[in-house]
Amino acid sequence: MAVYTEVTDEALAEFLTHYNIGSMVAFRGIAEGVENSNYALKTTQGDFILTLYEKRVDPADLPWFLGLMEHLAAHGLSCPLPVRARDGKNLNPLAGKIAAITTFLPGVWPRRVLVEHCEPLGAALAKLHLTGAGFAPTRANALAPDAWAELLAKSAPRADSVQPGLGGELAQMLHGIVANWPRNLPTGHIHADLFPDNVFFLDGEISGLIDFYFACTDIYAYDIAICLNAWCFEKDFSFNVTKSRALLRGYMAHRALSEAETAALPVLAQGAAMRFLLTRLYDWLNTPPGAMVTPKDPLDYYRRLRFHNAAQGPAAYGL
Amino acid sequence: MAVYTEVTDEALAEFLTHYNIGSMVAFRGIAEGVENSNYALKTTQGDFILTLYEKRVDPADLPWFLGLMEHLAAHGLSCPLPVRARDGKNLNPLAGKIAAITTFLPGVWPRRVLVEHCEPLGAALAKLHLTGAGFAPTRANALAPDAWAELLAKSAPRADSVQPGLGGELAQMLHGIVANWPRNLPTGHIHADLFPDNVFFLDGEISGLIDFYFACTDIYAYDIAICLNAWCFEKDFSFNVTKSRALLRGYMAHRALSEAETAALPVLAQGAAMRFLLTRLYDWLNTPPGAMVTPKDPLDYYRRLRFHNAAQGPAAYGL
Repeated sequence: MAVYTEVTDEALAEFLTHYNIGSMVAFRGIAEGVENSNYALKTTQGDFILTLYEKRVDPADLPWFLGLMEHLAAHGLSCPLPVRARDGKNLNPLAGKIAAITTFLPGVWPRRVLVEHCEPLGAALAKLHLTGAGFAPTRANALAPDAWAELLAKSAPRADSVQPGLGGELAQMLHGIVANWPRNLPTGHIHADLFPDNVFFLDGEISGLIDFYFACTDIYAYDIAICLNAWCFEKDFSFNVTKSRALLRGYMAHRALSEAETAALPVLAQGAAMRFLLTRLYDWLNTPPGAMVTPKDPLDYYRRLRFHNAAQGPAAYGL
Repeated sequence: MAVYTEVTDEALAEFLTHYNIGSMVAFRGIAEGVENSNYALKTTQGDFILTLYEKRVDPADLPWFLGLMEHLAAHGLSCPLPVRARDGKNLNPLAGKIAAITTFLPGVWPRRVLVEHCEPLGAALAKLHLTGAGFAPTRANALAPDAWAELLAKSAPRADSVQPGLGGELAQMLHGIVANWPRNLPTGHIHADLFPDNVFFLDGEISGLIDFYFACTDIYAYDIAICLNAWCFEKDFSFNVTKSRALLRGYMAHRALSEAETAALPVLAQGAAMRFLLTRLYDWLNTPPGAMVTPKDPLDYYRRLRFHNAAQGPAAYGL
């Protein structure tokens, strides 16, 4: 649920004079996304999304994110296309923040993930990887394994208040994952946050991918591992191998996976679970009461992590 | 910020088969309103709002609310028009709640109230009163003065944690307001919650009024008093008499106010401040940590109430 920054109608009207998209018809806050403020903007020329970037996003990264989206959209991937102002800029100040207007994508994100969603998802992820390969600039993953120890250190003193022994257990697991982290796997631009609420479906097909603000240049198969975590567990944290098999089948139909990539799936999936566990743990311990966002339970990812720890190889994921 | 109930895409698709409004194109939660769950729904036939009624709304009242909106819209007032399903019903079950689809209204609510907003607001309020007069069914105001003592009693034991002495002071003020409450003033259907976020403007004119879920049959001038509280105080709680004069001028251009009505403005304004103070106080003391809604400071209305207590007559409001 996210509208952190209120935009006055006067400020918005002034902002829109810099664009060539007609005049305002309606403007409503959107209760989705947790990092930035998003508004549905309707003008005389159509529907758009207005995003104000909040403090978690480094302004220095914004040109890269928007450049990637522009590249992907120009090459046929359905994702929000940043709209340029008359002066050519796609990032402009509004209400004390940096803001961008992007095109509106049709579709609905799946509140309940079904097996039918997983093969198209895998296919879309592979297409994202292939299409992104033509975008030359790179962005290091700020939440890669070398950042986890510091992230854990911030939460460690209070981690045991979430679950007794959690701090020590995570430190141990983290050490193991980092020690086994694969090197020399194919890398490129990955979404790194392709959860169900970032994937729109329409009539059973994917109509668009959104929210590229964690995108970075990292191991392709790590992006698959994030999706395995985000799409293939049931509400009781049991792993649905039919879903993971469909996801991997969809992916491999467009981009083949090497033996080294599939062999690394368990540790990559452990790492993906660790990454979300650590940021959620931090948020859980640091979200002030009365904040507009309900922190998500970090232990959801502890349970996933335990599954991946027990995985003996790619067969655990249906390969 | 409000999406309390998640609707699965399958449930929504099934729900839409009962309506004649085309098939789904997009569906996004709206971060506005605090009582119900609201979604922006785009279909192949246009834009709509889907509302799921949450626990604060009594289902028995819904036909009255929707009947009033239908009446108002049919008589030229711009408000959401409930869309009827093929079987004629405008209320239908969805995701375990009762839901309605209404038409989408253009416009933007004023984040910062300017004097220019107040005269059109007053005019729209008078038109609402006049247009509503043709709707025969009535609904008693559940938050009328005779309900306040019970509301205060629920908060009284902890009221002093908000401000020392608050419980006793409110009990005393409440007693005075109820004793002086006017009888025999003109009554009819009132909005009873016409705050800035329920009034859309487009190009300087009002494009629509929304959120009729506190509407009831009560003193017309009480509705004005609610607007004086909601629209005419500045951020520092100073009263802007230029705004109230514009609001009253706009109102009186369409519906004359009797001497008895204007004479009652101070006590009606006290009552309006008390009503919002009491519900906010209750919410303040009873919103669990981690709730998706940030409770609003009840003392904002304590400060307004003190202004109205000092008002010597209608001149305080610019008459």
